[in-house]
Amino acid sequence: MTILSDLGTEIIIPICALVGIVFSLFQWYLVSQVKLSLEKPDGDSKNGFNESLIEEEEGINDHTVVQKCAEIQNAISEGATSFLFTEYQYVGVFMVIFAVLIFVFLGSVEGFSTSSKVCTYDATKMCKPALLTAVFSTVSFLLGAVTSVISGFLGMKIATYANARTTLEARKGVGKAFIVAFRSGAVMGFLLAANGLLVLYITINLFKIYYGDDWEGLFESITGYGLGGSSMALFGRVGGGIYTKAADVGADLVGKVERNIPEDDPRNPAVIADNVGDNVGDIAGMGSDLFGSYAESSCAALVVASISSFGNTHDFTSMMYPLIVSSVGILVCLLTTLFATDFFEVKTVKQIEPTLKYQLIISTVLMTVGIAIVSWIALPSSFTIFNFGAQKVVKNWQLFLCVGVGLWAGLIIGFVTEYYTSNAYSPVQDVADSCRTGAATNVIFGLALGYKSVIIPIFSIAISIFVSFSFAAMYGVAVAALGMLSTIATGLAIDAYGPISDNAGGIAEMAGMSHRIRERTDALDAAGNTTAAIGKGFAIGSAALVSLALFGAFVSRAEITTVDVLTPKVFIGLLVGAMLPYWFSAMTMKSVGKAALKMVEEVRRQFNTIPGLMEGTAKPDYATCVKISTDASIKEMIPPGALVMLTPLIVGILFGVETLSGVLAGSLVSGVQIAISASNTGGAWDNAKKYIEAGVSEHAKSLGPKGSDPHKAAVIGDTVGDPLKDTSGPSLNILIKLMAVESLVFAPFFATHGGLLFKIF
Amino acid sequence: MTILSDLGTEIIIPICALVGIVFSLFQWYLVSQVKLSLEKPDGDSKNGFNESLIEEEEGINDHTVVQKCAEIQNAISEGATSFLFTEYQYVGVFMVIFAVLIFVFLGSVEGFSTSSKVCTYDATKMCKPALLTAVFSTVSFLLGAVTSVISGFLGMKIATYANARTTLEARKGVGKAFIVAFRSGAVMGFLLAANGLLVLYITINLFKIYYGDDWEGLFESITGYGLGGSSMALFGRVGGGIYTKAADVGADLVGKVERNIPEDDPRNPAVIADNVGDNVGDIAGMGSDLFGSYAESSCAALVVASISSFGNTHDFTSMMYPLIVSSVGILVCLLTTLFATDFFEVKTVKQIEPTLKYQLIISTVLMTVGIAIVSWIALPSSFTIFNFGAQKVVKNWQLFLCVGVGLWAGLIIGFVTEYYTSNAYSPVQDVADSCRTGAATNVIFGLALGYKSVIIPIFSIAISIFVSFSFAAMYGVAVAALGMLSTIATGLAIDAYGPISDNAGGIAEMAGMSHRIRERTDALDAAGNTTAAIGKGFAIGSAALVSLALFGAFVSRAEITTVDVLTPKVFIGLLVGAMLPYWFSAMTMKSVGKAALKMVEEVRRQFNTIPGLMEGTAKPDYATCVKISTDASIKEMIPPGALVMLTPLIVGILFGVETLSGVLAGSLVSGVQIAISASNTGGAWDNAKKYIEAGVSEHAKSLGPKGSDPHKAAVIGDTVGDPLKDTSGPSLNILIKLMAVESLVFAPFFATHGGLLFKIF
Repeated sequence: MTILSDLGTEIIIPICALVGIVFSLFQWYLVSQVKLSLEKPDGDSKNGFNESLIEEEEGINDHTVVQKCAEIQNAISEGATSFLFTEYQYVGVFMVIFAVLIFVFLGSVEGFSTSSKVCTYDATKMCKPALLTAVFSTVSFLLGAVTSVISGFLGMKIATYANARTTLEARKGVGKAFIVAFRSGAVMGFLLAANGLLVLYITINLFKIYYGDDWEGLFESITGYGLGGSSMALFGRVGGGIYTKAADVGADLVGKVERNIPEDDPRNPAVIADNVGDNVGDIAGMGSDLFGSYAESSCAALVVASISSFGNTHDFTSMMYPLIVSSVGILVCLLTTLFATDFFEVKTVKQIEPTLKYQLIISTVLMTVGIAIVSWIALPSSFTIFNFGAQKVVKNWQLFLCVGVGLWAGLIIGFVTEYYTSNAYSPVQDVADSCRTGAATNVIFGLALGYKSVIIPIFSIAISIFVSFSFAAMYGVAVAALGMLSTIATGLAIDAYGPISDNAGGIAEMAGMSHRIRERTDALDAAGNTTAAIGKGFAIGSAALVSLALFGAFVSRAEITTVDVLTPKVFIGLLVGAMLPYWFSAMTMKSVGKAALKMVEEVRRQFNTIPGLMEGTAKPDYATCVKISTDASIKEMIPPGALVMLTPLIVGILFGVETLSGVLAGSLVSGVQIAISASNTGGAWDNAKKYIEAGVSEHAKSLGPKGSDPHKAAVIGDTVGDPLKDTSGPSLNILIKLMAVESLVFAPFFATHGGLLFKIF
Repeated sequence: MTILSDLGTEIIIPICALVGIVFSLFQWYLVSQVKLSLEKPDGDSKNGFNESLIEEEEGINDHTVVQKCAEIQNAISEGATSFLFTEYQYVGVFMVIFAVLIFVFLGSVEGFSTSSKVCTYDATKMCKPALLTAVFSTVSFLLGAVTSVISGFLGMKIATYANARTTLEARKGVGKAFIVAFRSGAVMGFLLAANGLLVLYITINLFKIYYGDDWEGLFESITGYGLGGSSMALFGRVGGGIYTKAADVGADLVGKVERNIPEDDPRNPAVIADNVGDNVGDIAGMGSDLFGSYAESSCAALVVASISSFGNTHDFTSMMYPLIVSSVGILVCLLTTLFATDFFEVKTVKQIEPTLKYQLIISTVLMTVGIAIVSWIALPSSFTIFNFGAQKVVKNWQLFLCVGVGLWAGLIIGFVTEYYTSNAYSPVQDVADSCRTGAATNVIFGLALGYKSVIIPIFSIAISIFVSFSFAAMYGVAVAALGMLSTIATGLAIDAYGPISDNAGGIAEMAGMSHRIRERTDALDAAGNTTAAIGKGFAIGSAALVSLALFGAFVSRAEITTVDVLTPKVFIGLLVGAMLPYWFSAMTMKSVGKAALKMVEEVRRQFNTIPGLMEGTAKPDYATCVKISTDASIKEMIPPGALVMLTPLIVGILFGVETLSGVLAGSLVSGVQIAISASNTGGAWDNAKKYIEAGVSEHAKSLGPKGSDPHKAAVIGDTVGDPLKDTSGPSLNILIKLMAVESLVFAPFFATHGGLLFKIF
């Protein structure tokens, strides 16, 4: 049937995953070569300094700087670890409760019966009992949750390991610093992609031992993996997002605006909390999020395929097509990474953004070839896909186009995001220009920019959906999502690079290093803001496709054949679903606001009561600020989390699967818009501020320097953008994915016992 | 069949409309009793002053104040008239082009054939040719457009007639000023409601002479009336919105923020433009908008009813049910108005908001009785309604519930809006409190408030839709919208009251009257901000219902029986449709921003180059500012107008009716959220600022006074909110309605010739 044999498949997937892990560890080793020890760097010794360092040029020659960096890094790492452990305790409780819920709800579908049942899609066969699917779903949920947590945690570890090293390398040159930050990002990217693939692969193989030929049940239970991954991501994103922005906003409002001290000044009591926040929010949260997307799109593709011709004929290689695509993706990303680290070298500030942009282009071009090969060798030339009650014939080249359209749509979204958030182009420059007339016009222009930036991404997503949906129904949409995520290792590498550079700048400032180092890290960071926005663009775009695929799988599993807007049940679902992202954003933004107010009070209190703090003779109490952020984020992540997790359950149980379908579609089409506009608006404001600060053009100089009225207006925009781009915006893509995957997992329960309200009346 | 005879119906509708017009003229007469002439007021003469005026109390006794007021009023009135005439010239060109388009497109459905055709819904009968329906649709389009323009224009006239009179009455007391402003609002409300009803009624009767028994064709051609009304409203809202906010933002940024002079200070060159703007945007635009909603919901109900049992049996009274409901609405609102003007008297500032709130409650309670009576006498006890291919049996009490649920949902939306935008409650006070930490937290809290304020209105709308949809399909939804709009006269009265009070305050300031008068008009204005937000809430809520009803009518007319989200054509429509409100908002906000920047430059230029301007010895050049606002709004209203008007045409022609259905549903569910959140956010910021300025509580005092840091932060929020609440937000409800009604009118053309792209490939 397929050119690639089943044995080949069994070998190729784990090999690629292991290659990814080894490559990641090698990158880690390279980063670790930058020593962060108390030993004095002398000549061309351990640290391998061949050029003179900035402080040597400046004749400062302060070797204690390394020690200071190490101390600060340590404080950040400890803060992040301690927060994540606290978070995981709470999330662990949730995990256990939800696991029980999954077991009870799914087990009750057939009254906890242990006897086999007739298969849903093939009445001639017998399938495993629902009770066993409940058990395996629970297990895969827990596996997904644990893998997600580990992905986020490891990302945080490497990021806090690399930040001070980036700072130290910045003494040698912007290129050296770039490499360290980028390699560290790659560690995270490859570890996550490879781990996610490996765990999923092993789980499938282990479950198969029990399920045997019942692939319908096997892949239904595997969907729990996606749910586990995504539910952890929700708490990671929301909790981390509130943490980081409460600290950031609080630190900026008192430090920059009231006290007129620079960003990341060590006198600011919230500065450690702010730097910890970057790691728990933008790194750990982002990692969990993209892992969730990856797991969900794989699960969506698998569950749809299990009732298609692959599944019916038990064609293992074709079934594993989604995983083979991801495997090849790891190899492609590995090659892509070498372009940034080995084949070329970044020497000047101007090369940073193009280098990162080339990463996207190279990985996309290479991956297109990769997908073509995989589609050729791992698929039969023609097969059928289940399409809401009918079987649809699909050719292998059509499936190649489905994956390809997703991949290229991702690139377009990336470029559009870059255009709207990088200060190299007119949109951000216009926003900066509007600061002349004050903060109000800055906010108006920024909001308008965010709204406008939605247009092309939505058309890209719509075209991807249309092409993939037309060719291969929901399976096509699922593999389009996988296509967009197939270069996830590269995507995460350039994304994680941002917060690492941001931290590196913070450490330089706190360690009292030369302002020239700060200039270099600022340049790295400005590019990082753009890549972070690109990363969010990918996350949102893929979330839209994934959610639609999951939605399709849910509809199939709940045995609905049409979701007709012209029925009141569906329409009210659509309307209320479109409202949920607003409700959720209101919660998260208010949480950040409230927590930031507390932080402001504490920072003000310390400035007012600790004598010598402003003069730098006394040390601030960092720990209290860390505690405020921790407490606020733990407390405040519960209501939005509950909203997302409970909505599908309440709607499904009370109103039934039709209304739930409406809710999912509504939240999808509405949430994706707010998510894109929020993260681009925030990114644009941040870079408009950096544009004025850097003052590299005549125009920028006319707006600056720091402390000028336009700069003050830009700082206000930046602060408003913080919760938009780092809390509410990126959490929204989890909202839409998670509600879809949760509905999918609970579909049999809703279909059997749901819609109570309509049954009663 | 019905208790009310056809003759009774023929009498009752025009009589009610005439009563409305006479009442409105009587209110106008009462307002005109406040003389605005140069004659000195002596004792208890013409102006009927029995109490001493403020200036007499203060011993100023400056009788030239009346003359100054008259001059300023004249300038505002001339500015508004001249702008509206300029606008109407451009809009007139559009009207002609679009009329031709309607004729050509609809005429081409059957190749401009003049022979009768078989009816669409009853194959046993012959209907009038499509060409004739094209002619009549074009005529009713033009009638709707002209009525809409006249409604807006008359509203503007009475508002600019009343504003200075309100100022003068404020010298006697807050109650007297309130009565003048409120009566003037009532003039507009009743004129509009009665005119809209009368023109529609006459048109139906005239068309019936030709159509005879072909009610299907008759009411299809009547839908043009809704399209005409709404397309004028679009330009009114967008053009007026850009005008008013460019002037307002420009005036505030230089005057209040840079020069530290009060709002509406006569030294500010943009002050006349600002006051003109209130009349062309909030009055004329709002009037056209609500007229559009009213016309569309009537048309939607009529076109659905024409293919139901009423229509088939030619039961005139039952067919006219929507118009009878509106007729009774006029009587109910008349009675309600007396509660504010005659039965009770406003004596103190604290009574203003409750009085306006009671208006809503009283009209809703009375109208509930009215609807019950109309449903009892004007409907058969049981009838059938066309429901996407099937006939559905409906009882008269069920239809009563449909209208009633819309009516009460309107009240709930009104109250929720009041809660979130009035500074008497904690949400606005929290926003004001967040100004302590600066503009950034103010903006974050304000945005969060807007998002949160969406929740209850959306649930109210969803419940209304569910109830009315379940009972009587799309006819139910249409009459629910009519129910919400049945108290339109009262709604408009309290809404128009706001800008009139705002202008009155401006005139007091410009005429250099005592600050105590300004305090009174400010109190009127603060209540006005809330009522304006309530009015927008009504407009948005009714727009959601109307659009759904129009959407349903479109689907019926295009002969689609399901709009299945699980087809790629529909889903991409849904996604892109949900994006349109963002695109539209981006355009309008950017337009306001750009125009405001120009205004800022001009105002700065005048302050810098006209000697003696700041000292008050030289007069500013008001005309240039008026010209900037006029030019900007005329130029900038074209792109968003084109987006709205062309989208249904392009989608319908290229992608066909399924995709267009998706676009309509998507823009509806997404647009309503942005519209509500934008107008509430803006209203809250405005009142948070007023809360700090008024300083009536300990808390408010701790934030003020004017010029304090929290107050400056509040001013920034207010400025950001201006385009949100007065330009992009309220225009969005026109976007969703207008696309739906346009699709409905062109439905036969799209069904016949649409979907070219899919036909080619």
